[in-house]
Amino acid sequence: MLKNFLTYLHYMKYKIFSELTYEVIEPTTYIFNIQVAKTLNQIIVNESISISPDLKFEEFSLTNSENRFLKLQINYGTFTISYNAIVEVVEKPINQDLFEFDTSIIELDNDVLPFISSRRHCESDKLLHFAKKEFGQLPNVYSKVKAINDWVFNSIEYISDSTNSSTSACDTLISRFGVCKDFAHLCIAFCRALDIPARYFTGYAANLIPPDIHACFEAYICGQWIIFDPTKLTNTKNLVKIANGKDASEVAVASYHGNTICTKMIVQCEEIIV
Amino acid sequence: MLKNFLTYLHYMKYKIFSELTYEVIEPTTYIFNIQVAKTLNQIIVNESISISPDLKFEEFSLTNSENRFLKLQINYGTFTISYNAIVEVVEKPINQDLFEFDTSIIELDNDVLPFISSRRHCESDKLLHFAKKEFGQLPNVYSKVKAINDWVFNSIEYISDSTNSSTSACDTLISRFGVCKDFAHLCIAFCRALDIPARYFTGYAANLIPPDIHACFEAYICGQWIIFDPTKLTNTKNLVKIANGKDASEVAVASYHGNTICTKMIVQCEEIIV
Amino acid sequence: MLKNFLTYLHYMKYKIFSELTYEVIEPTTYIFNIQVAKTLNQIIVNESISISPDLKFEEFSLTNSENRFLKLQINYGTFTISYNAIVEVVEKPINQDLFEFDTSIIELDNDVLPFISSRRHCESDKLLHFAKKEFGQLPNVYSKVKAINDWVFNSIEYISDSTNSSTSACDTLISRFGVCKDFAHLCIAFCRALDIPARYFTGYAANLIPPDIHACFEAYICGQWIIFDPTKLTNTKNLVKIANGKDASEVAVASYHGNTICTKMIVQCEEIIV
Amino acid sequence: MLKNFLTYLHYMKYKIFSELTYEVIEPTTYIFNIQVAKTLNQIIVNESISISPDLKFEEFSLTNSENRFLKLQINYGTFTISYNAIVEVVEKPINQDLFEFDTSIIELDNDVLPFISSRRHCESDKLLHFAKKEFGQLPNVYSKVKAINDWVFNSIEYISDSTNSSTSACDTLISRFGVCKDFAHLCIAFCRALDIPARYFTGYAANLIPPDIHACFEAYICGQWIIFDPTKLTNTKNLVKIANGKDASEVAVASYHGNTICTKMIVQCEEIIV
Repeated sequence: MLKNFLTYLHYMKYKIFSELTYEVIEPTTYIFNIQVAKTLNQIIVNESISISPDLKFEEFSLTNSENRFLKLQINYGTFTISYNAIVEVVEKPINQDLFEFDTSIIELDNDVLPFISSRRHCESDKLLHFAKKEFGQLPNVYSKVKAINDWVFNSIEYISDSTNSSTSACDTLISRFGVCKDFAHLCIAFCRALDIPARYFTGYAANLIPPDIHACFEAYICGQWIIFDPTKLTNTKNLVKIANGKDASEVAVASYHGNTICTKMIVQCEEIIV
Repeated sequence: MLKNFLTYLHYMKYKIFSELTYEVIEPTTYIFNIQVAKTLNQIIVNESISISPDLKFEEFSLTNSENRFLKLQINYGTFTISYNAIVEVVEKPINQDLFEFDTSIIELDNDVLPFISSRRHCESDKLLHFAKKEFGQLPNVYSKVKAINDWVFNSIEYISDSTNSSTSACDTLISRFGVCKDFAHLCIAFCRALDIPARYFTGYAANLIPPDIHACFEAYICGQWIIFDPTKLTNTKNLVKIANGKDASEVAVASYHGNTICTKMIVQCEEIIV
Repeated sequence: MLKNFLTYLHYMKYKIFSELTYEVIEPTTYIFNIQVAKTLNQIIVNESISISPDLKFEEFSLTNSENRFLKLQINYGTFTISYNAIVEVVEKPINQDLFEFDTSIIELDNDVLPFISSRRHCESDKLLHFAKKEFGQLPNVYSKVKAINDWVFNSIEYISDSTNSSTSACDTLISRFGVCKDFAHLCIAFCRALDIPARYFTGYAANLIPPDIHACFEAYICGQWIIFDPTKLTNTKNLVKIANGKDASEVAVASYHGNTICTKMIVQCEEIIV
Repeated sequence: MLKNFLTYLHYMKYKIFSELTYEVIEPTTYIFNIQVAKTLNQIIVNESISISPDLKFEEFSLTNSENRFLKLQINYGTFTISYNAIVEVVEKPINQDLFEFDTSIIELDNDVLPFISSRRHCESDKLLHFAKKEFGQLPNVYSKVKAINDWVFNSIEYISDSTNSSTSACDTLISRFGVCKDFAHLCIAFCRALDIPARYFTGYAANLIPPDIHACFEAYICGQWIIFDPTKLTNTKNLVKIANGKDASEVAVASYHGNTICTKMIVQCEEIIV
């Protein structure tokens, strides 16, 4: 339906399915973040959540956020949560003319200032000298972010299942391996070390091998949030956004408070030819 | 003016003065957070900011936040920023009957969920076992937070100027010394490790020796944010709130982007007898 | 044979068996430290090493050390190394009268000075304040070490397989759980923070459940190395020494350089009634 | 006197002076390592230690070590320790033909095995993947060590007084700045991550600006310890060796146990034209 209006912008339609199965060892509260975000350039044609066995759950969003969470508690047993959606995504128009400008922190919109702070998994305060020496002399914000993205792609090896939720950007800088979340955290940390606002992005990716919920990052370049994938595993035009956050912990696919084991995870994202 | 209406609650009036002087080594952007917050129980009778030499500055708040920031840029030289205020503070009414209840994470208001996350300086994810063993068996949220506050007071030695902005809760747990910010970060980390929302608090404190902007923390106990001072250097009833944040980095008295040295800092907070 | 001469000292005889099986993924060099040490109070009645399939190996000791190593290289396949020994152990005589004295670092034998240094897994330099506050006021070296041993036993939870070879004393102080190696590293770090020489001890332990090569530590108390087991899982009189080192890395049961997986480990230590 | 016999090797004679002054805040034990080592290629023509005021001190060496220590205790006041020496140094002959060979760990002399271990300040265990990817494909030990030395020189910025005694190789890899000790620690950590024995080197350096006791590292290349200076501040042929150690902590210029401040340090090393 959006298609006619957007002749020159990339337009896609996706069929999405994700399913997580858990064994509950002791009473556990789960917070899921698996539904696609409702944004100006994403239209959810239809979607459904089902939980088996049938469990009460609550949907919520935090104030001033597009991210959508599901909360539920279960005391014992096993359960499966499934999400189905058809989503239309139109490429966000980008004004590339702005890419030739540099921005200083005094010119930044105040509401993006929280996105230059150091975080548990993005210790930008420890990378000030490194970032300035390696990327600081480049002529504008865009070229700095692009250089960061390329540096991380070239320097870090993608190794499946090689890290865990406590791995931080500095850990990755030393180990030199990681998964998509670690690539994103390191890029975010470098950007913030240069006073460039950056945020974590999660989404469904068509044709990702192996299929998984993917993590990338967005940098704030002259007033526009621009997405980059430092793993170069996806075309960023083929992503369906789930959430943005200051780091992975804010937009975890699943957070647990209790004791549980994820025994199965299925993720599917297929382009629908229209 | 509030006094007549609040016979049973603690009421105070304060004269506040703070002044910071900087030498600017290279062009630097400053973000100050020194103005008292406008809250339901704090009335600012009058206040003024002056900068010498006269410099353009911008006041701003982030969306959905009571915290008040000042932003300015200066290229070279020295400058002094001064803040004067007269503030009336009335004690927040607290329903102590609620202190006998325990709350689980499923019952928490969704908007306080960000206050149970791990942070750069409050690595609650590393303290899960410690917090559960040391405080987890206590019967309700209030007794857990009180035990955390007492444990930190008894275990950590207050040593002026002993730490810096990179010191985290885990660093303090090992070194066993710190300043008010470190005491607050450690308490916050323990609370969050037990799924108790906790936030950082900065304020002016009457009779604090030596005078300084003070840091404490607030825990979310059965729907109420309750303040604690793990340094036990102040009576928490005698604090004038500047800001709340997820950790110190969000509400730093002064953040710099550039190169500068703080050459002088004066903080005064006197009770006005009414 | 020693028995008649040592009426008052504890005397024991042990039958020891240990066996390790490996799958070799790429060419790997192994250094094993599984043979019991030849010391003044340990007599090896007999012992044998066998490797299956039959592989060439080299035995060596480092200059001025009782520790005994085996080195071998294998390119692919699987192999098993087995160790059998009968060992007589007589309790080392201890002069407890010395326990009432305190020693300062200036009085220490120079050759034990390396045992007060900070190490990768025993970061004593970070624990100076903690150790001084918690244990520093006790009247003599023995009471300090005993208090350290008890503190670690009471504060850290023993959880099998909960840590790995990168876990350090400071990690354990924060996580509050670990295995015998972690208990020993933390005690060693506290001792060294107080200028008390301390060293890592590995040995075979009769009646240890589950059977494993055990780790303890020794502190240098007024000229005598005294053994302590902070896990309190063994009677330290029932240990057969394999090695001493500055930390676990110097006396690892097995070090690998290559890529391999240990698929099976058997450890047996039985008292022989004589 | 050595000169006639060594026509082709570099021969030098140096006049060395170093002096350290301390204020003693509480009773403190000092261990100094400022005397030049007595080695096969260093002849001490004359030397003297003087302490003012006149204090009793003890000279010692550890078993099997060329390093020379001085130990003394002082309860209060100030004191100065001065060292004067005339030293003849002849270049160690190096067999460069061996540089084209690679060595595996199985071929290493057993007594150098301790020099491939991880240390508090050289966390080689965390750098296995990094070192293998960055340097592992080079054809022989010499080319690997040379590449490590060049990488550290090019990647790390030398900034005087920028670090302290707790700074480790991994810290430097993230901060990207340091002093000579940090450059040496990082090189050592990379070498050990590749199973190349490496050790810390301290010495007097002619023409070093600013004058200081210098730190470098030696790598064990096909049976020979070869010196490298990753700061490239000196010609390694112009160094007078004080000590070798597994890291800086073993051969600290001065170690303190107590509370003291170094108020003055003078280091002079001049070539004597012969």
